[in-house]
Amino acid sequence: MSPILVVGSVAFDTLHNAQGSFPRVLGGSAVFASVCASLLSDVRLVGVVGEDYPESAKAMLRDRGIDLTGLEVSPGETFHWEGRYTDDLTSRESIRTDLNVFATFQPKIPEAFAESPFVMLANIQPELQLSVLDQIRSPKLVVADTMNLWIDIAKPALLALLKRVDVLIINEEEARQLTGRHHLVEVQRALLELGPKTAIVKQGEYGAWLFQEGVAFHAPAFPLERVVDPTGAGDSFAGGFLGYLARENDVSLPTLRRAVVVGSALASFCVEGIGTTRLVEVQSSDVDHRVEAFAELVRV
Amino acid sequence: MSPILVVGSVAFDTLHNAQGSFPRVLGGSAVFASVCASLLSDVRLVGVVGEDYPESAKAMLRDRGIDLTGLEVSPGETFHWEGRYTDDLTSRESIRTDLNVFATFQPKIPEAFAESPFVMLANIQPELQLSVLDQIRSPKLVVADTMNLWIDIAKPALLALLKRVDVLIINEEEARQLTGRHHLVEVQRALLELGPKTAIVKQGEYGAWLFQEGVAFHAPAFPLERVVDPTGAGDSFAGGFLGYLARENDVSLPTLRRAVVVGSALASFCVEGIGTTRLVEVQSSDVDHRVEAFAELVRV
Repeated sequence: MSPILVVGSVAFDTLHNAQGSFPRVLGGSAVFASVCASLLSDVRLVGVVGEDYPESAKAMLRDRGIDLTGLEVSPGETFHWEGRYTDDLTSRESIRTDLNVFATFQPKIPEAFAESPFVMLANIQPELQLSVLDQIRSPKLVVADTMNLWIDIAKPALLALLKRVDVLIINEEEARQLTGRHHLVEVQRALLELGPKTAIVKQGEYGAWLFQEGVAFHAPAFPLERVVDPTGAGDSFAGGFLGYLARENDVSLPTLRRAVVVGSALASFCVEGIGTTRLVEVQSSDVDHRVEAFAELVRV
Repeated sequence: MSPILVVGSVAFDTLHNAQGSFPRVLGGSAVFASVCASLLSDVRLVGVVGEDYPESAKAMLRDRGIDLTGLEVSPGETFHWEGRYTDDLTSRESIRTDLNVFATFQPKIPEAFAESPFVMLANIQPELQLSVLDQIRSPKLVVADTMNLWIDIAKPALLALLKRVDVLIINEEEARQLTGRHHLVEVQRALLELGPKTAIVKQGEYGAWLFQEGVAFHAPAFPLERVVDPTGAGDSFAGGFLGYLARENDVSLPTLRRAVVVGSALASFCVEGIGTTRLVEVQSSDVDHRVEAFAELVRV
């Protein structure tokens, strides 16, 4: 088992969906990714919160073995996002984004974390993701997530970042936006030309593809009885994916394939509850069972 | 190997897409399904054409071992459909539908075909699909395809049909329209409640699911270098699916799972060319190779 450094946002989310309104639940890309990865490996979280971030949330993270040495507490309020989902949960609109302490966040990697072998650059500005890489010494694997906003407003930094990451995890729509291509095979080729040796294209309810030069691997999304809240599903995927690689301390293709299934399993748990509420109940044996159920979905 | 009875449309299609316009190419649900099924088993085609249907097309079908005893030739012209695809090939609009001889088609199953063990009710009016079943004695497996048009204008007949079929093959959008549900697990439950023991939900570029009570199986779509024309992909899936079951003369769940992969393989060949042009080049060894490539896509 190797430790994972997770850098990303720590936030409160206010969510509106067909079930109701859920004010200020725990969220943020680093939180979803860390909670999931902590089921599989040791996690070091780097992020920033305001003075309003509750001790109970920190305790929940610490109880999962997540090292919070790198969680900065700044004067002011924690990043807060508010959004509304369509009734079928397939799309959402942002109602309000209060960056608060996140507006001036400059990730500082504690010296003890500078040799972290596995690095998760969860979804934050690509400039910050680059600055993290400048503070890390010879990682074994760097995984980056991103979003449409950065493709729109920070594309040069994102392109610079992609030359330095091993695995890019990206939504299908965002992959199309980034590459200007529509057809999946052309999208994957264009993504790999941007730098990463491995590209993972997430298709939401349609599963995820892993691509390398000459390699394509697909995992479906788990057919759930009930989807409650998709917030954090992508970050949970990333956390489960990298958590599995770190647990195995291996980045060979067979391990990467299995890691996609583990990531899909964690994403499937994530969407079963509001925010992190379902994830924090999940035990490592639950992950094993769901991974087995995934295998059954495609067994011929 | 058991024979398959295929009943459906035989048509000319005029296609417009980003590659150009292709007037009066061979098409029709029974043709795509028969051409694909004939790679795996013996096929008996029942349908109707006009006097304009070329001898060369009949020769192509006969050369594949397809029994055309049930192909009626009526005075008048063959069914002709004209449509235009969007540049990304994900949707299409009908420009013109000339039913011609198909308008008065009443399928007559030759007595020699009345005991066909495998029956493919390709996409035609559900009333005609029902009349076929009335002419068949104790089939081993009945598979039906349908489309949005029949859900709109012939729902009672479609519902009556569904009580008498073993396998329903349906597009995801059409499955949502038929069941009034959005979420996949609810859609599949509602489909199975309508009668069929097995429901296959096709998701186009996102692959296909097979559902039975308590069973879910997924096959992705093959990531093709180039998609040329999706016309007939669903019918090709159905033909490959049933062709495999007939070849194995088995309808157990493990065989059904493999049949979904074979159907997906045939659909992937179909879309590589305009109309049937790519399919007619495909050899049975090509199918084997693509089925192996499919297995690799999901191997963990």
